Amino acid sequence: MLEQNVHDSGTLAVVDMGINTHQEPVVYMHKDCHICRAEGFNASTRLLLETAERQLIATLNVIENNNLSPGEIGLSNIARDSLKVVTGDPVSVSHAPIIDSLGAVRKKIHGHTLSDEEMLAIMKDVSEHRYRDIEISSFLSVCAGGRLNIDEIIGLTHAMVSCGKRLSWPGNEPIYDKHCIGGVPGNRTTPIVVAIASAAGLTIPKTSSRAITSPAGTADTLETLFNVDFQIDEMQHIVSEVGACLVWGGAVNLSPADDLMVRIERALDLDGEGQLIASVLSKKIAAGSSHVIIDIPVGDTAKVRTSTEADYLAGLFNRVGMACGIDVRCVVTDGSCPVGKGIGPVQEAHDVVAVLKGTTDAPSDLRDRALTLSANLIDLADACGLAQAATKAKEILDSGFAWDQFQRIADAQGGLKELPSAEFESVQQAHEGGVLLAIDNRRLARLAKLAGAPFCKSAGLRLHVSVGSAVNLKDPLFTLFSESSGERDYALDYYSQNMDMFAIE
Amino acid sequence: MLEQNVHDSGTLAVVDMGINTHQEPVVYMHKDCHICRAEGFNASTRLLLETAERQLIATLNVIENNNLSPGEIGLSNIARDSLKVVTGDPVSVSHAPIIDSLGAVRKKIHGHTLSDEEMLAIMKDVSEHRYRDIEISSFLSVCAGGRLNIDEIIGLTHAMVSCGKRLSWPGNEPIYDKHCIGGVPGNRTTPIVVAIASAAGLTIPKTSSRAITSPAGTADTLETLFNVDFQIDEMQHIVSEVGACLVWGGAVNLSPADDLMVRIERALDLDGEGQLIASVLSKKIAAGSSHVIIDIPVGDTAKVRTSTEADYLAGLFNRVGMACGIDVRCVVTDGSCPVGKGIGPVQEAHDVVAVLKGTTDAPSDLRDRALTLSANLIDLADACGLAQAATKAKEILDSGFAWDQFQRIADAQGGLKELPSAEFESVQQAHEGGVLLAIDNRRLARLAKLAGAPFCKSAGLRLHVSVGSAVNLKDPLFTLFSESSGERDYALDYYSQNMDMFAIE
Repeated sequence: MLEQNVHDSGTLAVVDMGINTHQEPVVYMHKDCHICRAEGFNASTRLLLETAERQLIATLNVIENNNLSPGEIGLSNIARDSLKVVTGDPVSVSHAPIIDSLGAVRKKIHGHTLSDEEMLAIMKDVSEHRYRDIEISSFLSVCAGGRLNIDEIIGLTHAMVSCGKRLSWPGNEPIYDKHCIGGVPGNRTTPIVVAIASAAGLTIPKTSSRAITSPAGTADTLETLFNVDFQIDEMQHIVSEVGACLVWGGAVNLSPADDLMVRIERALDLDGEGQLIASVLSKKIAAGSSHVIIDIPVGDTAKVRTSTEADYLAGLFNRVGMACGIDVRCVVTDGSCPVGKGIGPVQEAHDVVAVLKGTTDAPSDLRDRALTLSANLIDLADACGLAQAATKAKEILDSGFAWDQFQRIADAQGGLKELPSAEFESVQQAHEGGVLLAIDNRRLARLAKLAGAPFCKSAGLRLHVSVGSAVNLKDPLFTLFSESSGERDYALDYYSQNMDMFAIE
Repeated sequence: MLEQNVHDSGTLAVVDMGINTHQEPVVYMHKDCHICRAEGFNASTRLLLETAERQLIATLNVIENNNLSPGEIGLSNIARDSLKVVTGDPVSVSHAPIIDSLGAVRKKIHGHTLSDEEMLAIMKDVSEHRYRDIEISSFLSVCAGGRLNIDEIIGLTHAMVSCGKRLSWPGNEPIYDKHCIGGVPGNRTTPIVVAIASAAGLTIPKTSSRAITSPAGTADTLETLFNVDFQIDEMQHIVSEVGACLVWGGAVNLSPADDLMVRIERALDLDGEGQLIASVLSKKIAAGSSHVIIDIPVGDTAKVRTSTEADYLAGLFNRVGMACGIDVRCVVTDGSCPVGKGIGPVQEAHDVVAVLKGTTDAPSDLRDRALTLSANLIDLADACGLAQAATKAKEILDSGFAWDQFQRIADAQGGLKELPSAEFESVQQAHEGGVLLAIDNRRLARLAKLAGAPFCKSAGLRLHVSVGSAVNLKDPLFTLFSESSGERDYALDYYSQNMDMFAIE
């Protein structure tokens, strides 16, 4: 039985557990901890942790062995980082307060419309880690399926912007940006579009993300060519020098609420259009953009499957953009098959550089898409008509101006690096002859990841065939790149069981 | 870099982490684990764990210190128990397969109606721990707010029944049961109703739950009087002997899907009526009941707030009951204030025994409610009319037959125990005189929990005043019971800051 004086003992000593629980803060207390017992805490109770400077709400897991003593509180990485504490620091613990904005979530569950104020309250609490994952999931689920009206999408967009940092570019306006809603592997147009558009005189401070589930994100790819990790003031310096930047967006914290929600949306495979639009546009607004091109690929395995859907989405993007004071143009593109030849950071970087340099091995599909998007950006800026803008974009690329501009950006970001080679290469040959009808994007991406991408930069693969072309028996299909024989073997083992990811007939 | 042969190394050695993560299975792997790296696992990835006999899907947390070696896999308690493994056992690990029934959840997100087959697929996967908490949350959220139609509620009820055990009572039919949808503290009518109804000749095999957020559940209360922990065959033996039982339902596993969902509903404070009806009726059907009385208390702080709501809910209960082949009668009762005098397992047991024995200190409100519910059960059985049934119930109670029958049940369950006394008692006096207008049920329950209930059986409190009666300065308001001075002090400290939980004017 508990006999010590517990009046002033709502305080426990921190133990850094070294456990990565992703974004959900989890804390660990021993089952015999006096606070657990006295307060009636048990596994999954929500707790308020406080230090002199900071507060955090976290979920409790109860430790039933001796890895923790009753006077200690173990913290997961995100809890430790949010509270900025180390092992031994005191933390006071009590029941988490009631989160008022959850009342608005329940209102939405019951089918009511949320006001701007309610959206803001929800986003504020989400961005400050006051929601647990099941609460974020509940909110996202009842907003998906077309359950947000246009005013709610606008309110959500404004609310997301309000919860993060907001960049400004005095003297460099207007600010241009491009975004692809995703779903097509290898679609690495961003570096090319930024080079062409900024060579044409547009200011385009581009932030990109790293891969989460794919073999490479734009930031992973660019990192193999130059440094992409900059703070806001450094980013502003680069843009003032060369009119553009190509940096990783993670350090900038533009929409913390969105970052927390995207993770749950992805896990649930939710495709709420309202959430998508608010997510994309809030980041553009926070980045200080005034003119944005949105690439909407349409295809059976892309995010958007029909052109009707794409048009509807484009209409919403335009209306929300207008309400938020930014000029949005959507470009519907072909999303039926992968783009380029390389998969994995270094391999995709090779494709980007080939297109910019205009070498003979440059993938024409990647080049064409980048030109289309660049032309739209130029037209958005100059209102010169798409035909003239397309001619201008092509001239900038073919003349080498885009490659020059790309090198200027690279220099401003610390200089171009040489792309590394992979330790192990393995060419795989066609197991039969015929026409290559399709490539299973999902399994191809998995193959590249098993080979080590994106963590091993040079790992991945390079296709030697394209969908629709003839293939002879023993023609090289692709080269697999890896940095260890183990990962190579593991990937090839997977391939040997999944050779039908190349449909040859 | 990874150089070992990884072809046959999808196997890791179990480490029992002793971490209680409640119902969500969590596993822990070192960040340098070769499988993590090769498969691209990261924090929150869903994994399939396999032993020779069992499978489990669990969520990954990544360990970044040396508490785990790269060849090990740590298991939370629920993961360990589900796989039935101990430290050192081999477990093979791979990406979790896609859960097909999540397609039906997305269908519901998009506003479509779910078929019986889809409901069954969802409940099967939930009951087999294939859903993570955010997925259960998503499903519950889009089913709440009146979004399940009557056919879906019926489908959900059948699906829940299909996923658990189902009891039968050959030779003892019809089978009677009672249930209270909750929300009123101290409403411990069950033991009294079971004694009266079974003394009247009805077969009533009652299973009850333990407290989750309250200071006592019926099983916690009864456990202070006799053993309540029985397997199904023992339960059947008891019922064949004395026509009734009063056991803990936890060992019986009647609706595993519901058990997993209730936890999320409670955390989200969801009040989906469809879910409530399916939850209650599925357990009754699984328990083999043919006739059920549902107690629906109505009050400002109860689950149901208006009689209109109560009538609507009663209508749904009747229709779903009819479709599922059981006879359901709803009894709408007063839920405006707490029932009885005791709060906490032993204190509530005292009230139950006092009513059964007919002692002078028996709380009349508890007695009246138990008689009303018993009369309804008897009328449901005999169709004798409520007035005659009420007379019969009162006779059984007043004559001592009910107390005799209660003792027979106790004997069949191992014999009546003496109720323990608390080590520490502290009488709290009124801090002012006047009329007691209200008691804050929520804070009163919290006070009892701080004193140690329900884990310390004798902890809790006993009210010496009732709402509506006059109170003089220094009149005893309540006695606090605890098993340690620490818990007593902690509770009294809370009370000293919350004396206005008794509204005296």
